[in-house]
Amino acid sequence: MKPSDEPRPADAFGEADRAAVYRAIETRRDVRDEFLPRPVPDEVLRRLLSAAHHAPSVGLMQPWNFILVRSPQTKALVHDAFARCNAEAAGMFEGERGALYRRLKLEGILKAPLNICVTCDRARGGPVVLGRTHQRDTDLYSAVCAVQNLWLAARAEGIGIGWVSIFDPDDLRPILGVPQEAVIVAYLCVGYVDRLFDRPELEARRWGQRLDLASLVFDDHWGQPSAVLGGASSDV
Amino acid sequence: MKPSDEPRPADAFGEADRAAVYRAIETRRDVRDEFLPRPVPDEVLRRLLSAAHHAPSVGLMQPWNFILVRSPQTKALVHDAFARCNAEAAGMFEGERGALYRRLKLEGILKAPLNICVTCDRARGGPVVLGRTHQRDTDLYSAVCAVQNLWLAARAEGIGIGWVSIFDPDDLRPILGVPQEAVIVAYLCVGYVDRLFDRPELEARRWGQRLDLASLVFDDHWGQPSAVLGGASSDV
Repeated sequence: MKPSDEPRPADAFGEADRAAVYRAIETRRDVRDEFLPRPVPDEVLRRLLSAAHHAPSVGLMQPWNFILVRSPQTKALVHDAFARCNAEAAGMFEGERGALYRRLKLEGILKAPLNICVTCDRARGGPVVLGRTHQRDTDLYSAVCAVQNLWLAARAEGIGIGWVSIFDPDDLRPILGVPQEAVIVAYLCVGYVDRLFDRPELEARRWGQRLDLASLVFDDHWGQPSAVLGGASSDV
Repeated sequence: MKPSDEPRPADAFGEADRAAVYRAIETRRDVRDEFLPRPVPDEVLRRLLSAAHHAPSVGLMQPWNFILVRSPQTKALVHDAFARCNAEAAGMFEGERGALYRRLKLEGILKAPLNICVTCDRARGGPVVLGRTHQRDTDLYSAVCAVQNLWLAARAEGIGIGWVSIFDPDDLRPILGVPQEAVIVAYLCVGYVDRLFDRPELEARRWGQRLDLASLVFDDHWGQPSAVLGGASSDV
């Protein structure tokens, strides 16, 4: 069917399809160590990238680029950049917390067969972009939406994603040749997994715990507890 | 089954479930005008908020809050804040582009039965947050992941979402009582829809067009066209 210029009938999903969407959302994990060496086939990778490219973007700016990193030399340099910052970060946590931090595995840069760097080209679309006139950072937010789309599609494909943020973006810029007008938004480790944590790994490893959703939702004004979550914390 | 502290077997989705996830991603739209007045039931709203709360967050920071706006007075004030900035924005586009801008409907604040303001509390989790030590804005990115989770869950529920970004956040802050430590990341219009555009509305209305994904993907280094997308632009 030819694309239409007018809205067309669009239904809610059936129960099984709706459940599949929630399953992707609820079982998605930030993966650091469960990566298998099996390469991601090009066909599957195209589906993941297409999912990312279907993200919402401010003013249809589509500010994202994707650098597919498979070169062992490049991965090694990125890992060095991580290791330097991770050592600094470990020193910021004291006592038992510092000891626990050092025991955590926080990236799978070398283990994952594929890394993807997601960037945001802040100059794309020219000097004035619809919807970005009063909030400049909405382009970065668009790129993050692309990351989350890719992440959820990957879950459905049996592929795990780990988002590494412990590096100085200026260290990665020359390694990947990212020009000044582009911001490095995310560096993702990507690979098949056959095991996943059934809750966030940082929770399973006692680093932190899930907040009660009811405490985070307000009705009409900040601080006014929502009646919607009134007796519903067991849903969360 | 009790949550486990170790990873457990996790499969790829079956074909139908995988297709459902892609369908949510590919048919999700930014909705401005198709909202129906039917209220979103609390049970459904809890599912959407729970989906948002299942987003990844840096260091398990979960920096998000959700203000559910249904008060007509509050919506009217938010709409005023939008209208003021939208008039400014229209003046930034010249000639035919300005005329087209003025014809576009860019929000459904009053028409949608529910608005949701999503914020990011930058102080949550204390002064040092795992994963945020070298990239301060990863907390904002976490809040955006929550928005995208909510958006995709909403699609599966037959609910449309429109992200309004044409306002000055400082205008909204006093209306919603958002404290200084929290950033207003997204203001969403939310309601059932029975029609959706089958491509981005800004594309259907000739404001912009989809970029070729192949031009956005590189192998190992910025500027090096990816072999993965080599002859694959028909996939996109």
